[in-house]
Amino acid sequence: MELYFKPLACSMATRIALYEAGADAAYFEVDPKTKLVQQNNTDFVTINPLGMVPALRTDDGDILTENAAILQHVADSFPDAKLNGQTAQERSRIHQWLCFIGTELHKSLFNPLLDPKAPSEMKKYVLEKNLSLLDYLNKHLAGREYLLNRFTVADAYLFTVLNWSMATPQIDIAKWPNVMNYRERLRQRPSIVKAFGDEFKLYQAEQARNKAA
Amino acid sequence: MELYFKPLACSMATRIALYEAGADAAYFEVDPKTKLVQQNNTDFVTINPLGMVPALRTDDGDILTENAAILQHVADSFPDAKLNGQTAQERSRIHQWLCFIGTELHKSLFNPLLDPKAPSEMKKYVLEKNLSLLDYLNKHLAGREYLLNRFTVADAYLFTVLNWSMATPQIDIAKWPNVMNYRERLRQRPSIVKAFGDEFKLYQAEQARNKAA
Repeated sequence: MELYFKPLACSMATRIALYEAGADAAYFEVDPKTKLVQQNNTDFVTINPLGMVPALRTDDGDILTENAAILQHVADSFPDAKLNGQTAQERSRIHQWLCFIGTELHKSLFNPLLDPKAPSEMKKYVLEKNLSLLDYLNKHLAGREYLLNRFTVADAYLFTVLNWSMATPQIDIAKWPNVMNYRERLRQRPSIVKAFGDEFKLYQAEQARNKAA
Repeated sequence: MELYFKPLACSMATRIALYEAGADAAYFEVDPKTKLVQQNNTDFVTINPLGMVPALRTDDGDILTENAAILQHVADSFPDAKLNGQTAQERSRIHQWLCFIGTELHKSLFNPLLDPKAPSEMKKYVLEKNLSLLDYLNKHLAGREYLLNRFTVADAYLFTVLNWSMATPQIDIAKWPNVMNYRERLRQRPSIVKAFGDEFKLYQAEQARNKAA
């Protein structure tokens, strides 16, 4: 498998899942500005016309896009890691959480706040409207270690999104203690320590590249 | 099964899927302003704390939320209708399309345009940034009748979202002829004729209720 990623973007969830599974995979970094794949200067738009990470080249050679689809493909490719649902009911719950994280937390709350070009009126509106999503999450996480009863790809995605709060001072995660404790607990998990460590270095290098350009 | 819906909202995709499957289901209408279930005055927030449709009470009595999760549950509950993927590869493609429609078309393009409270700067920005999503879709639909090689729950969701363009004059679908032809072709499909007919009547009644209030 080949994962196309940008450091610390939502594609980090797939890296976490691959590390959890002990998978043998190749990682190709896409520069956010030039859209060039750093290892070989390929234009990433020829791989995903939307220009968005993640994209995954599967072992069949197909290109799969969209985070929730890729996470489930990786989870199903390494069944021993039990990163996906083991029953129809669990699979439905994972679909539900992947969809909630993707459409609500990622796209409706964090994305506009992280977008330097988004107008300030938009950021203000999004905060007013969508911070209550964290109340819902905080309630669900009361007394729970993970979203389901063990670590799954939904947790890989949720940690990745919550980790963005280091760049969104408007969201003070300490106001949602169960969410904060969940994030801090997952930050200690070996797959996440390694994924975050690897991508943080690449993120710093990307920032330095952009500053030099 | 019991579907909680608002007329013409994204929950219509599940109604289409249920009609396709010839399923025996109950439909409960949620008023967008009061959040009361019209049939029994239940506060919908006690069913889905997020207050968002769709929600599905499954035959096991569980409440499932999030459109992509509900659509897949319905598809898997009626395998003869072949509304979900028949192979792992097809399932991945359906995940990909459900995720694209949900995170990009629904949440990043149509939702802000349809939201009467969203600031005009936000609508302008969203149009500038996200109309190109329709270029991508238009290219994919060239020479295709459906998103995959037959009608699936991804088409039920895509039709539902494209149908909203009747309320977003900023998006002139005629500029994307494959998308427009796809929408018009699906509009003739019996399950969609019936679902749209049923919900349009309820939508008009809802508007009249709001006007009277």
